[in-house]
Amino acid sequence: MAVRVALRNKCGFSGFLLQLSYGSRQGRVCASPVIAAQQRNNSTTTNIKVDFDQSTGVAVMYMQSPPVNSLSLDFLTEFCINLEKLEMDKSCRGLIVTSSQPKVFSAGLDIMEMYGKSPEHCGEFWRAVQEMWLKMYSSNMATIAAINGSSPAGGCLMSMTCDYRIMADNPRYSIGLNETQLGIVAPFWFKDTIINTVGHRTAEMALELGLLFSPSEALKIGLVDQVVPEDQVLTTATQAMTKWLAVPDHARQITKSLMRKPTLDKLTSSREADIQNFVSFITKDSIQKSLRVYLEMLKKRKG
Amino acid sequence: MAVRVALRNKCGFSGFLLQLSYGSRQGRVCASPVIAAQQRNNSTTTNIKVDFDQSTGVAVMYMQSPPVNSLSLDFLTEFCINLEKLEMDKSCRGLIVTSSQPKVFSAGLDIMEMYGKSPEHCGEFWRAVQEMWLKMYSSNMATIAAINGSSPAGGCLMSMTCDYRIMADNPRYSIGLNETQLGIVAPFWFKDTIINTVGHRTAEMALELGLLFSPSEALKIGLVDQVVPEDQVLTTATQAMTKWLAVPDHARQITKSLMRKPTLDKLTSSREADIQNFVSFITKDSIQKSLRVYLEMLKKRKG
Amino acid sequence: MAVRVALRNKCGFSGFLLQLSYGSRQGRVCASPVIAAQQRNNSTTTNIKVDFDQSTGVAVMYMQSPPVNSLSLDFLTEFCINLEKLEMDKSCRGLIVTSSQPKVFSAGLDIMEMYGKSPEHCGEFWRAVQEMWLKMYSSNMATIAAINGSSPAGGCLMSMTCDYRIMADNPRYSIGLNETQLGIVAPFWFKDTIINTVGHRTAEMALELGLLFSPSEALKIGLVDQVVPEDQVLTTATQAMTKWLAVPDHARQITKSLMRKPTLDKLTSSREADIQNFVSFITKDSIQKSLRVYLEMLKKRKG
Repeated sequence: MAVRVALRNKCGFSGFLLQLSYGSRQGRVCASPVIAAQQRNNSTTTNIKVDFDQSTGVAVMYMQSPPVNSLSLDFLTEFCINLEKLEMDKSCRGLIVTSSQPKVFSAGLDIMEMYGKSPEHCGEFWRAVQEMWLKMYSSNMATIAAINGSSPAGGCLMSMTCDYRIMADNPRYSIGLNETQLGIVAPFWFKDTIINTVGHRTAEMALELGLLFSPSEALKIGLVDQVVPEDQVLTTATQAMTKWLAVPDHARQITKSLMRKPTLDKLTSSREADIQNFVSFITKDSIQKSLRVYLEMLKKRKG
Repeated sequence: MAVRVALRNKCGFSGFLLQLSYGSRQGRVCASPVIAAQQRNNSTTTNIKVDFDQSTGVAVMYMQSPPVNSLSLDFLTEFCINLEKLEMDKSCRGLIVTSSQPKVFSAGLDIMEMYGKSPEHCGEFWRAVQEMWLKMYSSNMATIAAINGSSPAGGCLMSMTCDYRIMADNPRYSIGLNETQLGIVAPFWFKDTIINTVGHRTAEMALELGLLFSPSEALKIGLVDQVVPEDQVLTTATQAMTKWLAVPDHARQITKSLMRKPTLDKLTSSREADIQNFVSFITKDSIQKSLRVYLEMLKKRKG
Repeated sequence: MAVRVALRNKCGFSGFLLQLSYGSRQGRVCASPVIAAQQRNNSTTTNIKVDFDQSTGVAVMYMQSPPVNSLSLDFLTEFCINLEKLEMDKSCRGLIVTSSQPKVFSAGLDIMEMYGKSPEHCGEFWRAVQEMWLKMYSSNMATIAAINGSSPAGGCLMSMTCDYRIMADNPRYSIGLNETQLGIVAPFWFKDTIINTVGHRTAEMALELGLLFSPSEALKIGLVDQVVPEDQVLTTATQAMTKWLAVPDHARQITKSLMRKPTLDKLTSSREADIQNFVSFITKDSIQKSLRVYLEMLKKRKG
């Protein structure tokens, strides 16, 4: 499968990103690459904790970046490194992604990575978002999102890359690609992913209006596959995984590639253009202003 | 957005069509281009009345071509001119399309434009149908169809070009692409539009059988988005519009283009071939005979 | 319609296949091509019985290959010859496919044609599977599957080629593309067919997990169109056919081609590559081992 090979060739890049971002941020608990490396050995980095059960072949990846698991450059870099490690471990057949933070799965892309930043930084950030999507959407592992909190924008995208989605039945949680509400636009591969998940018409309305769906609404339109009581999300995911692992890996993997390769190929064949496109859009004065308005609204809510 | 630019470049063509068709028909109230131009200033042409509320940025376009808003060459030309005017008016952000005629939204393409006419006329007519679809499906305005009556064939197509569809709950009304029932065939871009709206399988069965759906059936398959009591269609459309206008225009417009451009491009890149195809099909003896049978059936119904 | 022409050009091939397979199998009732030809005249071959009602223009094709209508090379060859005969008979407008075997519509591809066979044989077999799909999916006749029993894998594929599917409401019956459960992979045109039928997301989950659906589940996801009591499957199919035949043939046929041609073209333009791909996959040691395990499991069940 050409896709996997192409992605593997990029693993050097992820390491490069990691050094850069660790080098450029001060005051973090594990600013040293040496300590970070040790933590990776026991499968915990700053933002990600991995529990891998060798007996079942299933890893659980906990996102633990307070307060809301924003997908920052650091976060995405660590996420991809952990993912790559599991992907290359033949004994790991299934991956469950969930959150350690209360009330939120992931709040989506970290706006601070796009606001007031240089074009170079924005481009680097966008490449990391692409990388997360490419790695997850093409993963050879069976992947399940245990959505134990709200999951807007990039959080929704991450959920949709999985093979199966289970969401907590708390009506205060919501999920959706709400980018337009912020004045920004979900790029074509976000769009392709949601079309593949809920169909063209539902995707069109959801994207244009930037809709956030309650768990029961999300279930109805097929944005999630199952809704369960909040305290049963992870156990249900573990049970569901046994069904996915009952299928011979090679047959499931080839079938998954058959379903997803056309969508993946569209981005892999136009990554640089997509980055250019994002950078020129996000660095526009009008878009920066939209982001500032949004950030100020967020501040007021907290205050 | 290349599509809009391409469409704008064609506005000279619409005016040309208007003159031609006004010139070729006698006995109409406003046969003179001069009077037609005055009417356009106050936003009423023979077949179309436009109420534009500057305070909300929403225009309502009433189709008022007795008895059933048939999409004739005249009608389509006026429709496109009115649409183009609104499109170019930056203060107009939303468009509601509805009918002034009782019991019918639009009866679809005017068969008299295809029966016993020269190939040139048929080609001119078809270009106007294409133009309506291209303009509506790519509109930068938020568009809502307030379907206050039956909407077969071309009427259904026009509804489907909108961003949102609200239909009166009268079970005597129906909507669908019923072309095959008349012995004719909905072309590829009608087909693409209904696939985008209700999905491949439902579209396949609906098109092959030429199905007309009751409002509740149409709601169930997603051909319309909402069904309300007959006297609330327009007010519901106005309320729904506020939700669409709450989204920043540029984000909604780029997203809409992202969703619809591939479908639009298929026709823009093959307009002439599509016209040729239509003309050679519709001028066949066997098809002309089908149309005659259908017209005679219509006459008997009335009689 | 280019597709039909292309298929017609291949009819010599089908006869060739028939001779070969009849020649290579001993002890069959009609091992002689002469007897087989006579049977074809009265519309019964070894595995297929055809009742053609001239008055209605509807043929019923009964699959009668004990015990489970496995799609062997012989079976598929006869199926395609019978289909071709009906297709070329202008008076035959509708085709109902059903089973004479109790409890099963068709068990799908005959594994014995892929297990322990030469690459040449596997390739010949695969070409026959392609031929069945191409002929059925592009048929000019209105086609209805009267699914009066279980219909896994290739049986499900055959059902999905029809214009309409009616299934017996017996909860012990199931339908689906369960290839991955056997360690094999449904090729791209199986995948395209199920996407066209149930949509991308449902197809993805159904294919990756190799799901078999009960009649009511199949109805819910749109894999079948109607579920009726077991003894009413064929009469319901006959009634449904009148609706399909009420549409003018040429309009229905062109519309069907419009809907299905892109999917058909993908295989017709890559048939040889698809055969190569299948042969190199199925003759792998690991896949042959999977098939042996599956066959041994089947034997134990019977024993």
